[in-house]
Amino acid sequence: MVLSKEQHEELEETRAHQYPTHRATVSALEEILYKPLPVLDRGFVRVIDYMGDDTAIVQSARVSYGKGTKHIQKDQGLINYLMRHWHTTPFEMCEIKYHIKLPIFIARQWIRHRTANVNEYSARYSILGKEFYIPAPEHLAAQSVQNNQGRGDQLNPEEAHKVMKILREDAERVYQHYEEMMNLNEQGDILDPERSGLARELARMNLTLNYYTEWYWKIDLHNLFHFLRLRADHHAQYEIRAYADVMLETVKRWVPLAYEAFVEYRQQGGQLSQTALRVVRSFIQGQPVTRTQSGMSLREWKELESILGIILEEKTDKTVA
Amino acid sequence: MVLSKEQHEELEETRAHQYPTHRATVSALEEILYKPLPVLDRGFVRVIDYMGDDTAIVQSARVSYGKGTKHIQKDQGLINYLMRHWHTTPFEMCEIKYHIKLPIFIARQWIRHRTANVNEYSARYSILGKEFYIPAPEHLAAQSVQNNQGRGDQLNPEEAHKVMKILREDAERVYQHYEEMMNLNEQGDILDPERSGLARELARMNLTLNYYTEWYWKIDLHNLFHFLRLRADHHAQYEIRAYADVMLETVKRWVPLAYEAFVEYRQQGGQLSQTALRVVRSFIQGQPVTRTQSGMSLREWKELESILGIILEEKTDKTVA
Amino acid sequence: MVLSKEQHEELEETRAHQYPTHRATVSALEEILYKPLPVLDRGFVRVIDYMGDDTAIVQSARVSYGKGTKHIQKDQGLINYLMRHWHTTPFEMCEIKYHIKLPIFIARQWIRHRTANVNEYSARYSILGKEFYIPAPEHLAAQSVQNNQGRGDQLNPEEAHKVMKILREDAERVYQHYEEMMNLNEQGDILDPERSGLARELARMNLTLNYYTEWYWKIDLHNLFHFLRLRADHHAQYEIRAYADVMLETVKRWVPLAYEAFVEYRQQGGQLSQTALRVVRSFIQGQPVTRTQSGMSLREWKELESILGIILEEKTDKTVA
Amino acid sequence: MVLSKEQHEELEETRAHQYPTHRATVSALEEILYKPLPVLDRGFVRVIDYMGDDTAIVQSARVSYGKGTKHIQKDQGLINYLMRHWHTTPFEMCEIKYHIKLPIFIARQWIRHRTANVNEYSARYSILGKEFYIPAPEHLAAQSVQNNQGRGDQLNPEEAHKVMKILREDAERVYQHYEEMMNLNEQGDILDPERSGLARELARMNLTLNYYTEWYWKIDLHNLFHFLRLRADHHAQYEIRAYADVMLETVKRWVPLAYEAFVEYRQQGGQLSQTALRVVRSFIQGQPVTRTQSGMSLREWKELESILGIILEEKTDKTVA
Repeated sequence: MVLSKEQHEELEETRAHQYPTHRATVSALEEILYKPLPVLDRGFVRVIDYMGDDTAIVQSARVSYGKGTKHIQKDQGLINYLMRHWHTTPFEMCEIKYHIKLPIFIARQWIRHRTANVNEYSARYSILGKEFYIPAPEHLAAQSVQNNQGRGDQLNPEEAHKVMKILREDAERVYQHYEEMMNLNEQGDILDPERSGLARELARMNLTLNYYTEWYWKIDLHNLFHFLRLRADHHAQYEIRAYADVMLETVKRWVPLAYEAFVEYRQQGGQLSQTALRVVRSFIQGQPVTRTQSGMSLREWKELESILGIILEEKTDKTVA
Repeated sequence: MVLSKEQHEELEETRAHQYPTHRATVSALEEILYKPLPVLDRGFVRVIDYMGDDTAIVQSARVSYGKGTKHIQKDQGLINYLMRHWHTTPFEMCEIKYHIKLPIFIARQWIRHRTANVNEYSARYSILGKEFYIPAPEHLAAQSVQNNQGRGDQLNPEEAHKVMKILREDAERVYQHYEEMMNLNEQGDILDPERSGLARELARMNLTLNYYTEWYWKIDLHNLFHFLRLRADHHAQYEIRAYADVMLETVKRWVPLAYEAFVEYRQQGGQLSQTALRVVRSFIQGQPVTRTQSGMSLREWKELESILGIILEEKTDKTVA
Repeated sequence: MVLSKEQHEELEETRAHQYPTHRATVSALEEILYKPLPVLDRGFVRVIDYMGDDTAIVQSARVSYGKGTKHIQKDQGLINYLMRHWHTTPFEMCEIKYHIKLPIFIARQWIRHRTANVNEYSARYSILGKEFYIPAPEHLAAQSVQNNQGRGDQLNPEEAHKVMKILREDAERVYQHYEEMMNLNEQGDILDPERSGLARELARMNLTLNYYTEWYWKIDLHNLFHFLRLRADHHAQYEIRAYADVMLETVKRWVPLAYEAFVEYRQQGGQLSQTALRVVRSFIQGQPVTRTQSGMSLREWKELESILGIILEEKTDKTVA
Repeated sequence: MVLSKEQHEELEETRAHQYPTHRATVSALEEILYKPLPVLDRGFVRVIDYMGDDTAIVQSARVSYGKGTKHIQKDQGLINYLMRHWHTTPFEMCEIKYHIKLPIFIARQWIRHRTANVNEYSARYSILGKEFYIPAPEHLAAQSVQNNQGRGDQLNPEEAHKVMKILREDAERVYQHYEEMMNLNEQGDILDPERSGLARELARMNLTLNYYTEWYWKIDLHNLFHFLRLRADHHAQYEIRAYADVMLETVKRWVPLAYEAFVEYRQQGGQLSQTALRVVRSFIQGQPVTRTQSGMSLREWKELESILGIILEEKTDKTVA
């Protein structure tokens, strides 16, 4: 269970109210507003607020006086055009605010995206809860042998069991010491009236990086797409991808036309280098080239095949060899 | 009249609708949503959308699960504390979007504030309307003799008349030529079917800097306060201050508690240097110092008097002199 | 002549000195440091300062203790990898500062790139010089009939002559009035001691948008590449492209390896949509599709042909028709 | 010893070379370029590169063609004026790049300053070294009883000893498990050829927050001053202040005039609220007010006394009471 009873009640009370507004409103997103969408073992993503919808993109692109057209097809056409030609400012006119609970080592990756507003739970001011991330066995992967920055095969059950045991025991122990240094017991009561207890801002350094933290995170749609392109991607670490995937679903509810354009022109599209374009051109013109002829490294050649989704034959080379 | 009939109708139709939402809603701001608030002779400020309210600041400062307290006094206390101690991130959690019509030379000042999202009407793509700014006679000021960057006394009526005549005639003429170069008449029809007409992206360079442009401008509350502190200030050029003053009123409607804190701790507060603090301390301790003793320049001394709102006596010096 | 005698002397004196430094130094860039590189009729780009070189990118990517490898081939490989996989932070570790003189209507386009530092010549504080941009006849293009945002054919000589006359005469006249309103003659002397003269911050509004302004502009290499990709491109307005082309040459001198990677993976590369990738795949597999089959709009199909540099045959369709 | 022998040699080799440059050069900063300045028990700050000096601020404020004046007094006057009146863009024209080694929990505070460029050592790609922070006994403070976010008195020796023991033992143990999970021994060799070893990006989550990380951090002078105002301050956590204090010394070497202005107008200056200014005015005019009369909270009154450096008498109240 992700939320405490009190948190759940507070949330329900907030959802209970509705207010009239002249602003752009998206009912598919209102349905899940404030609700925690579970991620990993104890994390979540909650949409707290949003500004704008698909028509707000159109409205801003036209610097219009009303709410943009009501013709979905024309709106989709314009939004596609804007996305394709990197006219990013209209997408910046939509904004979304999330409440996110995530492990600290993932928060550290996340925060590299600087064009967002963040307010994090303060472990100088408050005591962090005893909640840490333990990967499910199927996500306990070995170091990749091909890619220094990535995962390879799943660990065997025995290894996985051992790793989970270490992670859990160390997390338990450091938390016990965290409380002990602050002179608190598990109920948060003072252990020993003679001792003063270490300052929170210091005691926190004993926690491991899989402890959960929380923050409010607010970002515009253009920068959110940038985040999602990098993080809802198979190159991203699984744990951050799990968050990005859930957020992508919220975006689909919120701005379905912009979402379609994003999938078509960014997420499922591909960037080809000058050399890759030359290779593609040769193949289309019926003059296949080999990797050696192209001058591309094996790694780049494989990346090109992966983008195109086909194997580029290298018959000439093989014949020669 | 600032809006055309079509624009007015479009706006009214947008205002006609109301939708239910679970989001934070501010009725005082809803009242003026989409309505053009006049600025200068033909400009305006319109609030197009907003995200959050005073409780959203509190909610984010506490990384809370519900909507923040409902105790206004506690909220005001926390908001004051955040403002006083430069905890800026909770204020970043509110966002507002404006549609603004303003002269180009003011747009050029405005855009120096980079932490905002902008989408401007494109004079590459469209034809700019024939609307230019002519200052009212009472705003036609002479160059300041004390301050290289500012205005002095009002021009005398004769001079003012002459200036307004020049501004108006030049603006009229360059627009006539703007249309002529594009091979268009005043109704936007093609003048001469034999001529092709200059590209819009080039023709626009003939317009003067008092022509009006329009943009959508979106900013978070923290950065908006920064903008307003600099621009709703007597050091700012009158024309941009006119916009800032109107926007300040929209902020007062939107987040009244944060507005109060802004006025108390920023706008009506003052920044004192190390030396100025030393001077103030001496005066409070009954040991007044002269400017010469203080080591401050005449300019700084006057600035200090202006911040404090009193004249600091310099009797000793005068006696000597 | 772009610079005044005084400016030229000031610049020469600055270039006359050399100092020893332990920092990364690029002799090819030192050669042109401070020198104005002419752009348009009266504009220029001057490199004022720079931080880092190709090895600084490598050094930062490795968070290294020394200056990075001295093996150019390994450095090129790593830089290519970083560029290809959008690891942008190492490129942010290089910084360059320019002094640029450019027409105001171009400055307005330019400033949309917000991730740079700018300090512009103040027309509130100082008087703008009498220098305005008149396009050369070969750049006086008609409005494009295909693209609302662009240029078509060159104007015929008669039209071009007329346009240049208008631009020149209007620019001359508004400047004469600019001085007159400020109560100054052409030598900057007071015309009439009885009159006070309009404040500079107001008088400037009478100038046309082709007047030149100047600024210092400082940006990191990653954001500069982003700027150059958009502006050293045939979609960009000619006048800003002229600046971007010159700046691209300075980048080639400064960081030749990063420049090569930029050309290969960004400038001469291409972004394909999901649908475009599907089309390319079909063609490579010997199963050409028609535009209609692909579902692409005519505009997108043409864009794809332009990226690939070939015409994709549509024989089937034509046969049917 | 902070650096390994190899790191030391690499650094020395880099320092061994000098190159001629036309750029602004600061010999006082060149002296310490690349050298690690120790912070905490195992951290450091190294200046890696810099752009500009005091004259570059002046040069940019004037958008000048040469290197700014050579008159130090005039430069100091202008720099003071710019600082006092928040003309921030000229300070943005100087840039500095640091290599910093710091505990992860401090890195997490630090990164909230978003207007900087960062490239951090990757624990996805590489293995983090066994280096963690243990506070010196005199920095082991109790939780403050007045301020929820801060430290109070020093722990007694016995408590301090216990805390240090916990921190050290937990850090040792989690690192041993970090290696074990990756199937490595202390020398980095594979422990068991039958096991594959957990991916680095996962294993790192077992480390505690006092482990050291490293990054390259690049920032402009204006934003650096903002960072230093908040972090070289007694409200800041000791551990980050230790870094800020060392960096402040590097700024003093680099831009001594801007440093003086920063100390005078920012660091040693103070921000007074509207009410505080009213109180100060009354006192100066010989009409002291009590806190109750002022309407200030006790906390704000104490803050005002702290800024002014004097106790404001409250005799009237006391007499009444």
